[in-house]
Amino acid sequence: MPAGEFELIQRYLRGLGASRDDVLLGVGDDCALVAPPPGLELALAADTIVEGVHFPKGLRAADVGHRVLAVNLSDLAAMGADPAWALLTLTLPAPDEAWLEGFAAGFGALALRHGTALVGGDTTSGPLTATVAIAGFVAPATALRRSGARAGDTVWVSGLPGEAAAGLAVLQGRIGGPAGARERLVARFLRPEPRVGLGRALRGAATACIDVSDGLAADLGKLCAASGVGAALEGARLPVSADLADCAGDGPALRFLLAGGDDYELVFTLPPGTEPPDFAGAPLARIGVVVAAPGVTLDGAPLPRDVAHGFDHFA
Amino acid sequence: MPAGEFELIQRYLRGLGASRDDVLLGVGDDCALVAPPPGLELALAADTIVEGVHFPKGLRAADVGHRVLAVNLSDLAAMGADPAWALLTLTLPAPDEAWLEGFAAGFGALALRHGTALVGGDTTSGPLTATVAIAGFVAPATALRRSGARAGDTVWVSGLPGEAAAGLAVLQGRIGGPAGARERLVARFLRPEPRVGLGRALRGAATACIDVSDGLAADLGKLCAASGVGAALEGARLPVSADLADCAGDGPALRFLLAGGDDYELVFTLPPGTEPPDFAGAPLARIGVVVAAPGVTLDGAPLPRDVAHGFDHFA
Repeated sequence: MPAGEFELIQRYLRGLGASRDDVLLGVGDDCALVAPPPGLELALAADTIVEGVHFPKGLRAADVGHRVLAVNLSDLAAMGADPAWALLTLTLPAPDEAWLEGFAAGFGALALRHGTALVGGDTTSGPLTATVAIAGFVAPATALRRSGARAGDTVWVSGLPGEAAAGLAVLQGRIGGPAGARERLVARFLRPEPRVGLGRALRGAATACIDVSDGLAADLGKLCAASGVGAALEGARLPVSADLADCAGDGPALRFLLAGGDDYELVFTLPPGTEPPDFAGAPLARIGVVVAAPGVTLDGAPLPRDVAHGFDHFA
Repeated sequence: MPAGEFELIQRYLRGLGASRDDVLLGVGDDCALVAPPPGLELALAADTIVEGVHFPKGLRAADVGHRVLAVNLSDLAAMGADPAWALLTLTLPAPDEAWLEGFAAGFGALALRHGTALVGGDTTSGPLTATVAIAGFVAPATALRRSGARAGDTVWVSGLPGEAAAGLAVLQGRIGGPAGARERLVARFLRPEPRVGLGRALRGAATACIDVSDGLAADLGKLCAASGVGAALEGARLPVSADLADCAGDGPALRFLLAGGDDYELVFTLPPGTEPPDFAGAPLARIGVVVAAPGVTLDGAPLPRDVAHGFDHFA
C-alpha cells in the first residue's frame, strides 16, 4: 500500500465519532454500508469550508475539524433531525500527521457528543478545504422546513447572534475590548455549538426553521421567502450580547447581530399564542412577528441592503 | 435575496438529474428529505475532485460536472449498489453562469442516465473543487466488498485500463500517435463511464470488487490487502488497448495499463470455475488468479514500486 493517502485515511479517520449498530461497514471500502431505520425519513445535507473564505488561515486543526462537522450538524438541527452518519472529504496541501491528528480530535469529539459516526470519505491534495455530507433521521412529516411560516406567527432566535462574527473580528484585530469579553467572543467563533437538541425540541412546535450561517437578517429573509411572507423585527427585543456591546460598541453590535454570520443559532417561527419548548442550551428570544408583506423590517423600516444580504460568498 | 450564491444554486442545481418519488424535499432547504426503501441497505460514498490535481486546468465545465458524478457513481458500482441521491458541493473562484450551466449539463445528463437525483449541496467561493456525496441501495448482505477474495479465485477487469491515463498524457502533449486513436483516448479520460450495470450484475457472483481510480495494480493491491491475499497477474492476459499501444508504444502501454488512474473500470474476483455474468457495456478479461501470498505479481515477478502504488495524491 502507498505510505501516503491510503494509510493516512485509515489511521486518523477510521472509527471517528460514535459507534453505531446501524453502521454495517465503515471507512475503508468503496462505500460505507448503513441500515436506515424503518419508517423514518432521512435528512441529507453537505457543506464545505474553505481556508481563507470560511475560516482564517492558520486556524488550529482541531477547530477546523469541529467547524466542518458543526456547520453540517447545524443543518440537521434546522430540520429537527437526529444525526447519524457523516462522510468527510478533506483536501490538504500536504500530508501532515500532526494536523490530521488535531483535525480528527476536534471532529471526533463533536461527533461523539452528537451520536454521529464517520463512515467514509476521501483525502486528496490541494488547497485546504473540508466537506462533510451528513445524514440524520426524522419521523415522517415532522421535519422543520423553511416554508411553513404564516402571518401572525412569532419569530424567535436562540442564543446571542453576532458573537461569532465579532469573535472573528477580534481575531483579525478589527475590534478590541476587555480581555474576558474578547476571549468569549473568539471562543464563540472557534467552537460554534450546533443546536441539535433545540431542533429536536422544535419538531411539532415550530412552523418554520433555519440556521444562522450567513447572518440573522439574511437567513430570516430566506425563511420568509420560502414561506411567502415577511418579518417585522422589534429592535428592543433583539438579544444584544453584553460581550459584543463591550467590544464593538452599541451601534456596531446591532450590525453584528443582524448581519454577522457563523453563529449557527436557529431562527424559527411559532404559531400565535404558543411558547417555545423548554431548552436549556441557550436563551430563546422572541424578536418579532411574521407579516404578510415580503421582506424583513426593523421597527418598521427596511434593513440596509448589506445587512439584509449578510455574508454572500459571491458578493 | 442576495443576487449571488443563493440564486445561482437555485437556478442551476435545482431539479438536476432524475425525478424520484423517494425525494420528499430537494434542493433549497437546510437539508433534503428522502424516504429510504424498506429492507435495503444504503451504500454511502463521497469523493472530491480538485482542479490541477484530479483534472487539468481549463477542462470544460461539462466534463468537470460529468467527472465528479462519475467517480462517485463508480464507488457505488464497485459495491454493486443502485444509485439514488447525490449531494453536490461546488467551490468556484468566482460566479460564472456559463460555467455553471455547462457543469450542470454534464452532471445532469449522467445523473439522468443513472436514475440519480441531485437533492442538495452547497456553493462557495475558493479554488475550483467539486465534491459529491452519493447514496445507493443494495439488498442486505449482497454488497460487493473488497474483502471477500480467496486463494484460487480468478481476477477480472472490465474495459481497457490505461486508456484514460493515456488520454490525459495526450492532452498534456506527453504522447502522440494517430489522430483517431488520440481522440478516443482523450474521450476516455474526459468521460469515464461508471460501471454501474456491471456492479449490479456482479452482486451474488463476485467474491470481491473495487473500482480502478488510482491504477489497476494499486487498486487490486488494496482489494488483496483487504482480503488478506495476493494476486498473480498473467501478462499475456492483460487487455492492452490497440489505441494505447499505437500512441504510447508497447512497453509504455503496459505501464499505463497497470499504473494509470482514472479509468473507473471494475476489478473483481470470481470463485474458481465460474464465469462472469453477461455484460454488454465493456469486455471483461480474466487477468490472473488470487494467491495466498500477499502482494501483486506479474508473471511471477513483483511489480516495480511505482507501478504497484499507482496514483497517490500525497506521494
